[in-house]
Amino acid sequence: MSVEKLQRYREQMRTELDKVVDFWQKYSHDTQYGGFFTCIGKDGKIYDELKYVWLQGRQVWMYCRLYRTMERFNKPEILEAAKSGGAFLRRFARIPNSGSPWKCAFCLTRDGKALKVQRTIFSECFYVMAMDELARVTGDKDMQAEAAQMMDQLVHWVRVDPSGLGKPQLSGDTPVCSMAVPMMLLCLVQQLTEARSGEEVDKYREVGGWCVKQILQHLQVKNCRPTNMKQPGVCVCVSEPVWSVRWKPFALFGAISIGSIELSMTVFVQRGGTAILESVSSEGKELPGCEGRLQNPGHALEAGWFLLQYGLENGDQELQRTAVDKFMEIPFLTGWDKEHGGLLYFLDVDGYCPTQLEWSMKLWWPHCEALIAYLMAYSHTKEPALLDRFSQVYDYTFSHFSDAENGEWFGYLTQQGKVTLDFKGGPFKGFFHVPRCLYMCEKILDSILNKQET
Amino acid sequence: MSVEKLQRYREQMRTELDKVVDFWQKYSHDTQYGGFFTCIGKDGKIYDELKYVWLQGRQVWMYCRLYRTMERFNKPEILEAAKSGGAFLRRFARIPNSGSPWKCAFCLTRDGKALKVQRTIFSECFYVMAMDELARVTGDKDMQAEAAQMMDQLVHWVRVDPSGLGKPQLSGDTPVCSMAVPMMLLCLVQQLTEARSGEEVDKYREVGGWCVKQILQHLQVKNCRPTNMKQPGVCVCVSEPVWSVRWKPFALFGAISIGSIELSMTVFVQRGGTAILESVSSEGKELPGCEGRLQNPGHALEAGWFLLQYGLENGDQELQRTAVDKFMEIPFLTGWDKEHGGLLYFLDVDGYCPTQLEWSMKLWWPHCEALIAYLMAYSHTKEPALLDRFSQVYDYTFSHFSDAENGEWFGYLTQQGKVTLDFKGGPFKGFFHVPRCLYMCEKILDSILNKQET
Repeated sequence: MSVEKLQRYREQMRTELDKVVDFWQKYSHDTQYGGFFTCIGKDGKIYDELKYVWLQGRQVWMYCRLYRTMERFNKPEILEAAKSGGAFLRRFARIPNSGSPWKCAFCLTRDGKALKVQRTIFSECFYVMAMDELARVTGDKDMQAEAAQMMDQLVHWVRVDPSGLGKPQLSGDTPVCSMAVPMMLLCLVQQLTEARSGEEVDKYREVGGWCVKQILQHLQVKNCRPTNMKQPGVCVCVSEPVWSVRWKPFALFGAISIGSIELSMTVFVQRGGTAILESVSSEGKELPGCEGRLQNPGHALEAGWFLLQYGLENGDQELQRTAVDKFMEIPFLTGWDKEHGGLLYFLDVDGYCPTQLEWSMKLWWPHCEALIAYLMAYSHTKEPALLDRFSQVYDYTFSHFSDAENGEWFGYLTQQGKVTLDFKGGPFKGFFHVPRCLYMCEKILDSILNKQET
Repeated sequence: MSVEKLQRYREQMRTELDKVVDFWQKYSHDTQYGGFFTCIGKDGKIYDELKYVWLQGRQVWMYCRLYRTMERFNKPEILEAAKSGGAFLRRFARIPNSGSPWKCAFCLTRDGKALKVQRTIFSECFYVMAMDELARVTGDKDMQAEAAQMMDQLVHWVRVDPSGLGKPQLSGDTPVCSMAVPMMLLCLVQQLTEARSGEEVDKYREVGGWCVKQILQHLQVKNCRPTNMKQPGVCVCVSEPVWSVRWKPFALFGAISIGSIELSMTVFVQRGGTAILESVSSEGKELPGCEGRLQNPGHALEAGWFLLQYGLENGDQELQRTAVDKFMEIPFLTGWDKEHGGLLYFLDVDGYCPTQLEWSMKLWWPHCEALIAYLMAYSHTKEPALLDRFSQVYDYTFSHFSDAENGEWFGYLTQQGKVTLDFKGGPFKGFFHVPRCLYMCEKILDSILNKQET
């Protein structure tokens, strides 16, 4: 691909990032109570004043990251907004009398009263990200210590005892490893260790290694049932490891048509093959039923670039290869909608219909993660096919999600690519996936182009 | 409408009911562990063995109701299946050591181990329905007493103290009345009082009166914001009460176009108008934000026929009128998709985009409830326009949801009417809304035609 094309991509990423930052600066700041509105309509109008803790933490983190690492965002108003969000979180996010001093709410009223609490760790994770990045910008050691203490609590909940999260223990419970948990912890490890050293960092590195192992458990040698192979592209079966055939995908990867074998047949044809499963047992075994068969291509792609980054930082070439060849390749082969374009949200590895009502919708964030993943993989491998992947995702993403009229991106399309929820911010869409994608792609393109120029 | 047309409807309901009962008899019975599979693919294949307690209870109830009140289903195999489901529920549904001897799981493994528990009352409600109806069929007094005890616990959770349900009390909590709760309790009151008398029945009647009052609180005189009137059909504003203009809906009900009034304007134009809101405060006031603006047309229609039935049983003519003119008319005017047909799943009363990803999908159950509602309303008022409504919903429903090839109904369509989840049973779709609709419509048509023949 020509340098001009890469320069055009960089220009587009840069312009779009400026527009997205403008949008959130203009509409999301709550100057009365602090923190950020996140329920923002297509034209910037606030349609709900609730404050979601995930999104408060993410916006603080993103503002700080832009302020700290991109010169054109090193502006007092960005820092002030981040500080306002940080102060709001510190004052209101944690729930008093909840059994743990670290448990955070999921959702707050505009003035900071707790409204909902989840029995998971994610509000707390984004709290850590916000506090650590804000501490890097402000030099506030107390805040950094708070992030570290919260991280210790998170590791305890995940690796030692989850009972503090409030889920009752039930007789049918089997310990499940959801990919989101080690992914999120790995992301925090990368946040907390960046450009630091010492005992604390060694402790996090051990956690990081554990996370990588956990994530890799989701990569399964999967037995594909022939009865479900009629749904093309859903189940990938190959007779060789994926990486060796990567550049001839449609020769070997396409669905294997085997006609109409009896549905009641229970003997599975065994084949070497691969899949990234969203949930596995804590020993990495497949879980029964829908839960065990669920695939989330966007999540696999996000895990892909987390693993690639970790592999690069630690000089682990095998991990780099797995990240690219499995975590980035499989979700594309299984998740890209060949008829309408775009990445499907959920899939069942055996070709059943997922039970999630939104399974066939196209959401913005898997496309953001795909753009980062393929561009990062290309910048390290220089394999042209990865840049082609990036271009394909780019074309779909910028023509479907980006709103030229009012700025920012739509988040939710039908399978056919029509906007079906038209807001720019909502309970799960804030100032995070879009700007992080644009920011990272701009940085990666900078580095590719700088190397080519020298 | 001609008698022949009504006879054709009855024939269609009867044939379809037979096919649906066949489908579940053939595929859903777990002869090994008892109870019912409910995750059933389009052609009858079990794709997950989990047993959802709502759906176990509903299937027991439906089998018993058919056995008890329709001669052609008064067959030993129907009774045996119901008993098997009842025994499974009694043995496994309740969670030991959960703080209350009555708290039920939401989801069980195939062999009855608790897997998930909701912090709501619905598993318990369907347990009551199952036990009471099964007791009516078998004459088991213990079972009937168990249903009554569980009902007492439910009323306590709803009206006295919800803390036993396990939701933590948070500082931002405001007491909310979700329409589902009084609707469900009213349904249980009707179940428990049918053809009975005595002290217990008087107690339930008081609960029933309370439920009706709670449901009526969801009927709001709503201030429509002119800024949102550009989205046609979403916000209904009229200058007269709805009932008086019911038969000329498109003359008076269409969206009032007022051009592009400034979005920032905060003075609302006051208009008399109405809306059925899904959640209100416990005093019947509107709640702030998305939650307060949410409308669920299918739920309003279901509440409509519950209220009509209650009004008829109690000779309350005003309630009958409100049921038909508000709870059945408003959801149609706001919820019917004029472009693609069918009832939308969720709407925002002020015309914002709902945040539920599935808001624009067409689900089977609102259509089932609409068919019952309009036919019941017609049979009592004889107003031809109500039969027209029934016909319109009927045409959409039978041409989109019913599967002529493999039997039973699809549950989930895109806004455009395409099947997007192709299973016949899932975590929330069991042997309930479809057969209850067909059963009730057949019964109502019987009564209309019998009267016409005499």
